[in-house]
Amino acid sequence: MSLMQQSLVASLAEIVGPDRVKTDSESLQVFGKDWTKAHEPRPVAVVLPGSTEEVQALVRFANEQKIALVPSGGRTGLSGAAVAANGEVVVAFDRMNKILDFNPVDRQVVCQPGVITEQLQQYAEDKGLYYPVDFASSGSSQLGGNVGTNAGGIKVIRYGLTRDWVMGMKVVTGTGELLDLNQGLVKNATGYDLRHLFIGSEGTLGFIVELTMGLATQPQDPTVLVLALEEMEASMHVLQAFQAKIEVSAFEFFSEKALRHVIAEKGLARPFETEGNFYTLIEFENTSEATMDAAMSVFEHCMEQGWVLDGTMSQNVTQAKALWRLREDISETISRFTPYKNDISVQVSKVPAFLKEVDAIVTSQYPDFEIIWFGHIGDGNVHLNILKPDSLAKEEFFRQCGEVSYDIFDAVKSYGGSVSAEHGVGLLKKPYLHYSRSEAEIALMRGIKSLFDPNNIMNPGKIFD
Amino acid sequence: MSLMQQSLVASLAEIVGPDRVKTDSESLQVFGKDWTKAHEPRPVAVVLPGSTEEVQALVRFANEQKIALVPSGGRTGLSGAAVAANGEVVVAFDRMNKILDFNPVDRQVVCQPGVITEQLQQYAEDKGLYYPVDFASSGSSQLGGNVGTNAGGIKVIRYGLTRDWVMGMKVVTGTGELLDLNQGLVKNATGYDLRHLFIGSEGTLGFIVELTMGLATQPQDPTVLVLALEEMEASMHVLQAFQAKIEVSAFEFFSEKALRHVIAEKGLARPFETEGNFYTLIEFENTSEATMDAAMSVFEHCMEQGWVLDGTMSQNVTQAKALWRLREDISETISRFTPYKNDISVQVSKVPAFLKEVDAIVTSQYPDFEIIWFGHIGDGNVHLNILKPDSLAKEEFFRQCGEVSYDIFDAVKSYGGSVSAEHGVGLLKKPYLHYSRSEAEIALMRGIKSLFDPNNIMNPGKIFD
Repeated sequence: MSLMQQSLVASLAEIVGPDRVKTDSESLQVFGKDWTKAHEPRPVAVVLPGSTEEVQALVRFANEQKIALVPSGGRTGLSGAAVAANGEVVVAFDRMNKILDFNPVDRQVVCQPGVITEQLQQYAEDKGLYYPVDFASSGSSQLGGNVGTNAGGIKVIRYGLTRDWVMGMKVVTGTGELLDLNQGLVKNATGYDLRHLFIGSEGTLGFIVELTMGLATQPQDPTVLVLALEEMEASMHVLQAFQAKIEVSAFEFFSEKALRHVIAEKGLARPFETEGNFYTLIEFENTSEATMDAAMSVFEHCMEQGWVLDGTMSQNVTQAKALWRLREDISETISRFTPYKNDISVQVSKVPAFLKEVDAIVTSQYPDFEIIWFGHIGDGNVHLNILKPDSLAKEEFFRQCGEVSYDIFDAVKSYGGSVSAEHGVGLLKKPYLHYSRSEAEIALMRGIKSLFDPNNIMNPGKIFD
Repeated sequence: MSLMQQSLVASLAEIVGPDRVKTDSESLQVFGKDWTKAHEPRPVAVVLPGSTEEVQALVRFANEQKIALVPSGGRTGLSGAAVAANGEVVVAFDRMNKILDFNPVDRQVVCQPGVITEQLQQYAEDKGLYYPVDFASSGSSQLGGNVGTNAGGIKVIRYGLTRDWVMGMKVVTGTGELLDLNQGLVKNATGYDLRHLFIGSEGTLGFIVELTMGLATQPQDPTVLVLALEEMEASMHVLQAFQAKIEVSAFEFFSEKALRHVIAEKGLARPFETEGNFYTLIEFENTSEATMDAAMSVFEHCMEQGWVLDGTMSQNVTQAKALWRLREDISETISRFTPYKNDISVQVSKVPAFLKEVDAIVTSQYPDFEIIWFGHIGDGNVHLNILKPDSLAKEEFFRQCGEVSYDIFDAVKSYGGSVSAEHGVGLLKKPYLHYSRSEAEIALMRGIKSLFDPNNIMNPGKIFD
């Protein structure tokens, strides 16, 4: 350790205590990155503050010394927003993981940013309520990170995004100032809502130190339909037909290719014999006989219209969970194929045409690549996964995928879509930000960053340079 | 008209056409203010642009000439945000009132900013869908203004605020730049969401020229309960009991005093003989027999617990509408008493204690003032109306109310509440902004304003100086 580094560690230890500063190589590796693998973590140190005051002191110190800070939550990010690749100090929120307060009338929980998503989900359930934001990494992801990327997941169509559940937020800006935003109010028309500016800002404007999260009513008897389709276009008719008659809480999709991988890898049964090119998974709450009758009659209508080839409906919670696995296990299943992931979105109605166009682009340029489609078709968010052929070296594969990305994002742009629907921009999507945001918007974002973080201390180099 | 004014009018006429520039005193009066009466309108001219390009040209011209612009929508605002009291040019959106596009799969409508709320509600109904933001002035208010103040209203508890339905927005910033924000996407994690910054910014950052609004499923058989309570505290138990068993779409309240005024003025019948000090109006969708059974059983439970003295439930749409009038006609009824209006909010659970404290403050200082309480208790937003005694001159009454406002806002602050729940800040609440927002927040808001509007052209002097 250099003398400069020793002096830095000593100063950090004064703020958070000596046990809370890590410089061993394992800690630097673990805390210095998220789930992405494109960048080598190289933080200079990791600190684990235990209070808002310690976070403020760290930010003030970083301002004095012009040290860059990278926030670290559950490290499940998929855009590299929590990667410290340039000698930054990582500020990990693992110790600030307490649920501080709960009010049953307001249905609000006050949480520290290090509370794990599943911890809040479980807490809500214990109180007879429901925290509806859910996704594959909810067992590890932390609320601070969820808010930083405005996490979405599988229930967006019914319950919205993380944004919709943030009722209040305490945040330390890049100057060390503590802002107490919105204070759990439902209605508050007193000027610019800075809370919404911080949501999705990936730690570039400030670090969240407390969150007041809203909770929902528990869902009743979630029931799952899986339907086989020949054509992707049909999914739009199916969505519209169901939404006209019942409240849909999830509307997911996956391809036959995705299904085959999951079945083979996880030893699951096919939902039914009939093969489609695509499948939709629809979830709704079985609140009454009338709802169930409506769902059945929409299903029959979809069959009659030829939109749906076959289908099955869960009869109980166990069956519902089994059907969900066909969709939820895809990501894990294909991870051994070193997938190149794209998380893109367009308006819901444009999904079929968009998907066809992107599929054609990849197939024509790289006929040997296997493409696995799945995602949240009900909210326009599709995950495009390109699997690495065994014959191709990882570097060459990623290089070729990087090339084709420009064509994919040209399509995204022409459809008015987003190059990152729910994973954020971080380091990985930074080169492609201009496909979704104009130069004027990016210039305004830079200006806002300068206001909140004049010394460029807070997660610098993420989203934009 | 001075020569300078003549030259200005000629320049404006070049941009929007001579018929679209008004300088007659009636137009200046009508377009120069909203529903507030505290400031005398004194615009120099009114322009009625017909396109985005004309709005951009107006903003560029205003930058060159350093002329202040005030946006004007339905002019139903209650905070003076659309008042031109200082020789500004009013930019009225009345001509930009077309619905441009609709997509049934996305459930999105593309609207010009001058579309009237009711026009969108009706359009949605014609399409078998529902635009759920509703309030007393929806027959006149325009969407641009609704978004500018993040309008709330009577269905917030179930459907959220205007913010929740803005899927995309085109806006002309203070430099004349056109931003195309979010483009109707449900999921879009590509940096700071500037759309949310514009929502509630009262035209101080830019003028909205197009909106993509989301629509909801039509409600089924809205059913209304009116319950009499002895104590305000009981309303919290009632709210919690209902929310635990059924989905509540409105939870409003009004005092016995408010009820008496409405009954006398409108010739309505009492909902039932029993008198309470307070009444709650609960709306829910009668989606099934099970829902109705649940509602009845919660009602009985509330009676048994002594929270509720008596109650009635609508049996059909006509009865539901009649019960709604008891709540919705209050504002109009008391308008002849020259009420001093406060639109304040706290966390829902704090409403009873807060209301009691504020009532005591006003009563002790001004025992002759009659206080009328009503509002959206389900979202923590209460409207405090102080009626002018006949014996008191208007000016003296407003002066005294202004005095007591400081004490009321001290209470708001101590409860962590908002000095403007849904009416915005404009001119009227500007002196009180610091009761709800910290100095640091206000400084950041000023900085943001400078970024988007460096020459302070866009609705200057509103929200903050």
